[in-house]
Amino acid sequence: MDFTVLAERDNADPLAAKRDLFRIPADTIYLDGNSLGLMTHATAERVQDVVQRQWADDGIKSWNLHDWVNLPSLVGEKLAPIIGAAPGQVICCDSISVNLFKVLSAAVKLQEDRTQIVSTQDNFPTDLYMVQGLSQLLGAQRCELTTVDELELVEQPSRFINQQTAVVLLTEVNFRTGRRLPLQQLIEHAHAVGALVVVDLAHSAGAMPVELDTWRADFAVGCTYKYLNGGPGAPAFVYVAERHLQRLNQPLAGWFGHAQPFAFDPVYQPADTIKQMLSGTPSVLAMSAVDAALDAFAGVDLHQLREKSLALSELFLELLANYDFANAFECISPAEPQARGSQLSFAHDDAYAICQALIEAKVIADFRAPNYLRVGFTPLYTSYTDIGVAVERLATIMQEESYRAPRFQQRHAVT
Amino acid sequence: MDFTVLAERDNADPLAAKRDLFRIPADTIYLDGNSLGLMTHATAERVQDVVQRQWADDGIKSWNLHDWVNLPSLVGEKLAPIIGAAPGQVICCDSISVNLFKVLSAAVKLQEDRTQIVSTQDNFPTDLYMVQGLSQLLGAQRCELTTVDELELVEQPSRFINQQTAVVLLTEVNFRTGRRLPLQQLIEHAHAVGALVVVDLAHSAGAMPVELDTWRADFAVGCTYKYLNGGPGAPAFVYVAERHLQRLNQPLAGWFGHAQPFAFDPVYQPADTIKQMLSGTPSVLAMSAVDAALDAFAGVDLHQLREKSLALSELFLELLANYDFANAFECISPAEPQARGSQLSFAHDDAYAICQALIEAKVIADFRAPNYLRVGFTPLYTSYTDIGVAVERLATIMQEESYRAPRFQQRHAVT
Repeated sequence: MDFTVLAERDNADPLAAKRDLFRIPADTIYLDGNSLGLMTHATAERVQDVVQRQWADDGIKSWNLHDWVNLPSLVGEKLAPIIGAAPGQVICCDSISVNLFKVLSAAVKLQEDRTQIVSTQDNFPTDLYMVQGLSQLLGAQRCELTTVDELELVEQPSRFINQQTAVVLLTEVNFRTGRRLPLQQLIEHAHAVGALVVVDLAHSAGAMPVELDTWRADFAVGCTYKYLNGGPGAPAFVYVAERHLQRLNQPLAGWFGHAQPFAFDPVYQPADTIKQMLSGTPSVLAMSAVDAALDAFAGVDLHQLREKSLALSELFLELLANYDFANAFECISPAEPQARGSQLSFAHDDAYAICQALIEAKVIADFRAPNYLRVGFTPLYTSYTDIGVAVERLATIMQEESYRAPRFQQRHAVT
Repeated sequence: MDFTVLAERDNADPLAAKRDLFRIPADTIYLDGNSLGLMTHATAERVQDVVQRQWADDGIKSWNLHDWVNLPSLVGEKLAPIIGAAPGQVICCDSISVNLFKVLSAAVKLQEDRTQIVSTQDNFPTDLYMVQGLSQLLGAQRCELTTVDELELVEQPSRFINQQTAVVLLTEVNFRTGRRLPLQQLIEHAHAVGALVVVDLAHSAGAMPVELDTWRADFAVGCTYKYLNGGPGAPAFVYVAERHLQRLNQPLAGWFGHAQPFAFDPVYQPADTIKQMLSGTPSVLAMSAVDAALDAFAGVDLHQLREKSLALSELFLELLANYDFANAFECISPAEPQARGSQLSFAHDDAYAICQALIEAKVIADFRAPNYLRVGFTPLYTSYTDIGVAVERLATIMQEESYRAPRFQQRHAVT
């Protein structure tokens, strides 16, 4: 491994300085930002401030004094440029699952003469589950899930998205394979036949440029705890295209979504802004952490970020290919860089044990059933040197076959 | 004001030592635990630990290492004895609003031949809104809200709850008036005519003994940021009576509610435990704070807690009655202590300005539209001396009419 070359690449990296914003565990190569992003120093300080000064000292007054009441909107506006949304269309709240339910029910209601919701077979399960939950509640005569193979969908969209389709639910980057769908093209096709499109940006937001407005997406949801570093289980976000805001009915009609929540009116009257997507009282601790974490994106050129993401991925593949053991790793992510997100996935019979051995060697990757090893690249804090070290440690594990130790076989609750 | 007598009562108070667990803002009398409970020292330490050690150092490994994956259940089990629930029926997640949607839809589905949801006119708005949201989604032919006056409901339950009633949705303690409904009696009546009952414990849990199992409640939701001190906007909880767990369908079928979330099965198969009420990934920061806060309840006899809550309320009324200005405060909470929660509400034309003046004098109360001043009593940290000081400061404000200053008239976003 030629670490001099890697160090030179790090020196030339325009995003290199961002790494200092993060607290990186000692001697650790963290390749799991696609599952849980690392913490910035500013986030830790902010949480401390919210706890010690805002909640403890200022108590209930903080809803006004520290503008807690507007946190969902403030965080939404900070997110908007990262996902290509003009102001007034993004808000931070609840989980992806719950936000999916809001937008799916709203979309189905807008499409009353159609029942079919089309998604991909290998979508992240919660996306499919939320459609199943809605379908069971409303009955198949109002909402029915059809899943299709994502490659076939891309090749022949008109075979699957047609006059019967009410809503198309697409996750931009596949959580297992890292495949990236050509969203703009699929949205165009869907609109041409009168279908609405809900986009899940869990593995896109903060990892690459996203252009919701340009693509004319109808609705989107996304995660703040992966590439946006908002903290474990941090609140999600939801986007509604401005053209739909005036005609929407989302059923999780909680008091924070009311036009005047503090009037305590017994009749629900939704806000006419994106605030209508709010439901219950948001967690101030959790949302403040997201707010602070997003500041790491200040001044970041997302095209530059994408370039580095792909350069890191290519470097990983290139360095891996130098080893004989590489043949046993089948890369299931697309060969074409632009068709990928910011991760690589490899099928290997011993993926689970190898992942555990990597973690012990302080290379944090993750495993997804049945036999995939995933490595994620987070351009704000992953360096080229990191990739070199990670591949070297992997090589040691493979060459010494240390992953065969019984302690690496034992499955954990979360795998 | 005879503070010697008050100090003697504090000395004799079996709960007095609990006050030291909390961080009480300097020179402040905090009478707003019914809106946002104070922070315990242990909570601040726990949040710090979750941020600095768990998230920052252990990253993704923490889902196993620090058992993040089981936090919703662990917190649920810690809550269970506080609300009179045997194990396996309570879980911590989402907001009250979102949890109401889950249980209301599930209850409506169990009662397919009935459509009416009965609630009280003056219920907390989000409870009514969530029924309205469900009703708009399902159509009035499947679910329709009927609201009734709470006093009339108590006097003549059979006039309102009958063979047409699918679900009765009752908040035990009214947020405005502090009136406490006789839940056991209303549940018995509802069951006799085949209706299911959903209970909202927002202003009960942690403020008085709650006996969900004994009362045979079907479902319950509640808040952890009021008397349970879980932090601003902390996750809520949901209770499902064991007898319903096997036959439930809740539509917010997110991946955390799946029987095997990490199998990433494309078909939703709910857990057969209370975990089926989970939806998306929970906020670990927010839920850890709740977990730590609940430790303040260790060893607390809830009957003793209730006794102190009512003693504090009676003391407030008694001390207030010594002043002439008291006549202008109309107590809208029931005169009979057992018919109240742990707050007192007073109607006064200048309630808003008086509340602001009290806050400036470091007596933290709150205001609810149109003209109510609320004072809440949190037996774990409110002392008898606190009540003396609070009434004395109120007397100064009223006697000097300082509340008439223009700065106290200006309305804030959250009032």
